[in-house]
Amino acid sequence: MIGYRAPLADMQFLLRDVFNVEKLFASMPDTSGVTDDLVSAILEGAGKISEDMLSPINQSGDNEGCHYQKGVVTTPKGFREAYAAYAAGGWTGLTGEVRYGGQGMPKVLSAMIEEMIFGANSSFALYTILTTGATLTLNQHGDDRLKQTYLPKMYSGEWSGSMCLTEPHAGTDLGMLRTRAQPHVDGSYRITGTKIFITAGEHDLTENIIHLVLAKLPDAPEGPKGISLFLVPKIIVDTAGNLAGHRNGVECGSIEHKMGIHASATCVLNFNDATGFLVGELNQGLSNMFTMMNYERLSMGLQGNGLAESSYQIAAAYAKERVQGKGAGALKSGKESGDPIIVHPDVRRMLLTMRANILAGRALSLYVSSQLDQVKFHPDLAVRKRAEQLVALLVPVQKAYCTDRGFESCVLGQQILGGHGYIAEWGLEQNVRDARIAQIYEGTNGIQALDLAGRKTVRCEAELMQVLFEDIETFLEDGQADKRLVPYIKHMHTSKRLLSQATQSLLAAARVNPDAVGAASYAYMELMGLTLYSYMWLRMICAAQRAVNSNPENANYYDSLLKIGDFFYARLLPRAGALVSEIEAGPNAIMAPGIEQF
Amino acid sequence: MIGYRAPLADMQFLLRDVFNVEKLFASMPDTSGVTDDLVSAILEGAGKISEDMLSPINQSGDNEGCHYQKGVVTTPKGFREAYAAYAAGGWTGLTGEVRYGGQGMPKVLSAMIEEMIFGANSSFALYTILTTGATLTLNQHGDDRLKQTYLPKMYSGEWSGSMCLTEPHAGTDLGMLRTRAQPHVDGSYRITGTKIFITAGEHDLTENIIHLVLAKLPDAPEGPKGISLFLVPKIIVDTAGNLAGHRNGVECGSIEHKMGIHASATCVLNFNDATGFLVGELNQGLSNMFTMMNYERLSMGLQGNGLAESSYQIAAAYAKERVQGKGAGALKSGKESGDPIIVHPDVRRMLLTMRANILAGRALSLYVSSQLDQVKFHPDLAVRKRAEQLVALLVPVQKAYCTDRGFESCVLGQQILGGHGYIAEWGLEQNVRDARIAQIYEGTNGIQALDLAGRKTVRCEAELMQVLFEDIETFLEDGQADKRLVPYIKHMHTSKRLLSQATQSLLAAARVNPDAVGAASYAYMELMGLTLYSYMWLRMICAAQRAVNSNPENANYYDSLLKIGDFFYARLLPRAGALVSEIEAGPNAIMAPGIEQF
Repeated sequence: MIGYRAPLADMQFLLRDVFNVEKLFASMPDTSGVTDDLVSAILEGAGKISEDMLSPINQSGDNEGCHYQKGVVTTPKGFREAYAAYAAGGWTGLTGEVRYGGQGMPKVLSAMIEEMIFGANSSFALYTILTTGATLTLNQHGDDRLKQTYLPKMYSGEWSGSMCLTEPHAGTDLGMLRTRAQPHVDGSYRITGTKIFITAGEHDLTENIIHLVLAKLPDAPEGPKGISLFLVPKIIVDTAGNLAGHRNGVECGSIEHKMGIHASATCVLNFNDATGFLVGELNQGLSNMFTMMNYERLSMGLQGNGLAESSYQIAAAYAKERVQGKGAGALKSGKESGDPIIVHPDVRRMLLTMRANILAGRALSLYVSSQLDQVKFHPDLAVRKRAEQLVALLVPVQKAYCTDRGFESCVLGQQILGGHGYIAEWGLEQNVRDARIAQIYEGTNGIQALDLAGRKTVRCEAELMQVLFEDIETFLEDGQADKRLVPYIKHMHTSKRLLSQATQSLLAAARVNPDAVGAASYAYMELMGLTLYSYMWLRMICAAQRAVNSNPENANYYDSLLKIGDFFYARLLPRAGALVSEIEAGPNAIMAPGIEQF
Repeated sequence: MIGYRAPLADMQFLLRDVFNVEKLFASMPDTSGVTDDLVSAILEGAGKISEDMLSPINQSGDNEGCHYQKGVVTTPKGFREAYAAYAAGGWTGLTGEVRYGGQGMPKVLSAMIEEMIFGANSSFALYTILTTGATLTLNQHGDDRLKQTYLPKMYSGEWSGSMCLTEPHAGTDLGMLRTRAQPHVDGSYRITGTKIFITAGEHDLTENIIHLVLAKLPDAPEGPKGISLFLVPKIIVDTAGNLAGHRNGVECGSIEHKMGIHASATCVLNFNDATGFLVGELNQGLSNMFTMMNYERLSMGLQGNGLAESSYQIAAAYAKERVQGKGAGALKSGKESGDPIIVHPDVRRMLLTMRANILAGRALSLYVSSQLDQVKFHPDLAVRKRAEQLVALLVPVQKAYCTDRGFESCVLGQQILGGHGYIAEWGLEQNVRDARIAQIYEGTNGIQALDLAGRKTVRCEAELMQVLFEDIETFLEDGQADKRLVPYIKHMHTSKRLLSQATQSLLAAARVNPDAVGAASYAYMELMGLTLYSYMWLRMICAAQRAVNSNPENANYYDSLLKIGDFFYARLLPRAGALVSEIEAGPNAIMAPGIEQF
């Protein structure tokens, strides 16, 4: 098995040459200290942890899995030590609020770190991002006393967090949840109910776990409008913010046996008169939870991309080493013993598909992250508003499209190794199993697609897409001076035209048939994803063409990016036409069969 | 978990209404006794075994896996008993040569049985099809004494078989294999070498295992032309055909830990001066093995389809039961509590994609099987020749396209269940893991695509495709009388035109660039697969339209087929255009990056 290597060169290319984040950070007071040098230093540190500490316990963690006994969950060998070191290094509070002991770093930076950690060890990464998600929510909606009590120890890594949404009969439709919150005389609540699929709901990595739990008051309105959000610590915390020593009424009933992420504990949590504290307003729980969703969903796309990168590294190394058959054309060596399989065009097709999608997925994730940073840090309201609109449009696409492409890359990586990809030894089958969940959790990709096509497109008459198009137009105008970009700009215009055409068709169909949105949504999300990857490749090609001249000692690297970009346009973009046809086919064929005909 | 149900109605529809196999069997002396009634009875028997005996030990077999200790392999609980019952029922010799105790049944029949067994329990199925493959090879190429000695006990299920091809450094490129065969004075050989990835290479289901092994004589020509085929029994057999009681020099060194098919033992076999007997001519081993390949590869496509069917059954049942959210359009119930998720268009998209591809994949498998039966049984040489050509063209497509679509269906089924699809309980994640191998073994799908685009297309100037087109034309001419078929016939013409266009482009590119075949091969295989599915759907729609009138009590079933067919044409066929673009893009973008740029 080949260990994970942090793709620092690719990340630096995107951060500096493509997105020029130093300039962006300089324009916002709270991030003005985040220079390229600081970014490099932090990324190198995270890379080292990923390579030296997390990658080595990835396969062993998968083999061993988590253990459950009478409510106690034990993580696999090495996870406790790794988590302690991770916390000691200050990584758990990287993006946290400065006032409560966080480091206030931008999302652009933490996104790259998350990609690395997911790529090196997805199970481990989940413990960290759930805590980040919980602190985000708490910081945004909790009162100052709650924040004072809980945030510092969560940022320091002493305590961790979990998000308790799903119940046995309520997944996508949280309005159906049954967990109850009974007001208590002291102003707290007593929480009772069962939550399932709770990632990091119980484990031995931290001395306390802070659960954020959705529940309903007895007299709450029906459905999603009656949901409130509560903070429920595993161990009761005293007024001074120290462990009171006794357990709260929450217990882990079991952990799931699942396809992958074996070292991540997926828990059934039973709340039985557990003491909880209201976070935010009553009955605003769902919308409060949703402010955090954009961050968590972005993390899932990063998981897809990180595992794809890991699989690419292993598959590319194997393809250069493994001798099998002889090349037919340009790259044949003429050796009697055969050639490495990387000379075979179909092996290259798989590797280039992986690499083209990994780079575009990483660029898209950074593009969204930079918008999140502008929403949070930018002093100009108009900029914040525009960034907010882009975040709303892009997050469901980044989540669904990057996880789909990530899974596809993991499957392709496995395919390149043939039988060796199917056995556990090389780690590629684990990547496939670990990547699969990212398409499902934090809202299935079908739900993301529906969010994009419905709320983010039809409901606003594609207003958000216009914001994206303006951004693209601005970029195109800047780029037109460079003659070498002409063919790529032509591709971009075609992509935009196809997306516009499909959007008009969707809007028209939705006016007459309420099933039109759901019938078109998945293909529409894929078309949007492909169009965004096309945009990202245009930006990367533009930057690589500048850099190939200005940075001749790395010319070979930038030249490789230009070639991968060409592959993207020649071989991956053509699918857009088919997606438009699928969208334009409308809902009739999908809705025709009666339920009993399935 | 929902147990597997044999899809007998669908199978009967294909056998009777679409392919009219009774008429075909009646036209060939050796199969003239195979009536529709006999077929029904046998399929029902196989269905019962699949449902009652094999499906119940599928999940437990996955959990337990095979055990290895000091060369001994033990299968999971229940497998021995099931195999004994399976053999006692006469299933192991179903298609065997009558002269040696087989039942001489056609492939059309056994293909459907294999699909069921793979769908119910893929690990179990592998033990049976490896034996079938070995008997086929032995029957076709062995001398009469070998056949007399080994075939009857293999047909009876007392002994099983394995195929030993792959070595650590020789997978796709068998010319590199190093296992040696030393001639012995008594006319036998002494085999020495290591084979890996040997399915059913060692286990406790039968008292003997008959290995068919590829090896080279010391003075054999280099490469694939120096490979010979040997029969190597695990336990030496005396001249009377009974176990001599002592072990041959073959030992299982270990079994693989792999992604799925855990109950199937994948073995490292060490041959150390093992006694072997030549099968067929010296140095003809590879081509002798290839006569069996068409059968084995067909089995892999059936595995993909069988597991897809299993996943469809579970996902459809779940989608009808699981209440989550409210329908937006045609199927909304207006119930406050919500609707079953099958009312949501995106869930239907997934179910219909699965069902449309399962039906077409099954039809394609039967279409190929009926050609195999004609090759074997038809008295008319011209018919045999034509069937042989179709088999050559279709087998790589059926293997690769049905396993790709099968895996896709298993992934979609898992997606429909959301988080419940990711945990082990429902069996869908096992189906994904078990289906994945079918895209890899018996020649990876990339190799199938290369076989199709190279040997079966470019090398013969698309002569085989013309045979297929003639078959389609004949069918179209018959169908044109029926006005209702006009739109479907139009689709078929479009499909044919696109395939022709892509083929001409491929032929032209291959003349000037030897990398053109490999660069186009995968998209070309997919285009051929999609075109064949289009042809199969045309035939199914044609049959369903006849039957909806002639068989009114089943009108609802036939009507469902018509609707699924409409879905196929509206939503799945549009991808053909994108595939043509990929093919026409040529090899440049794929071959441009230098090896060091990966």
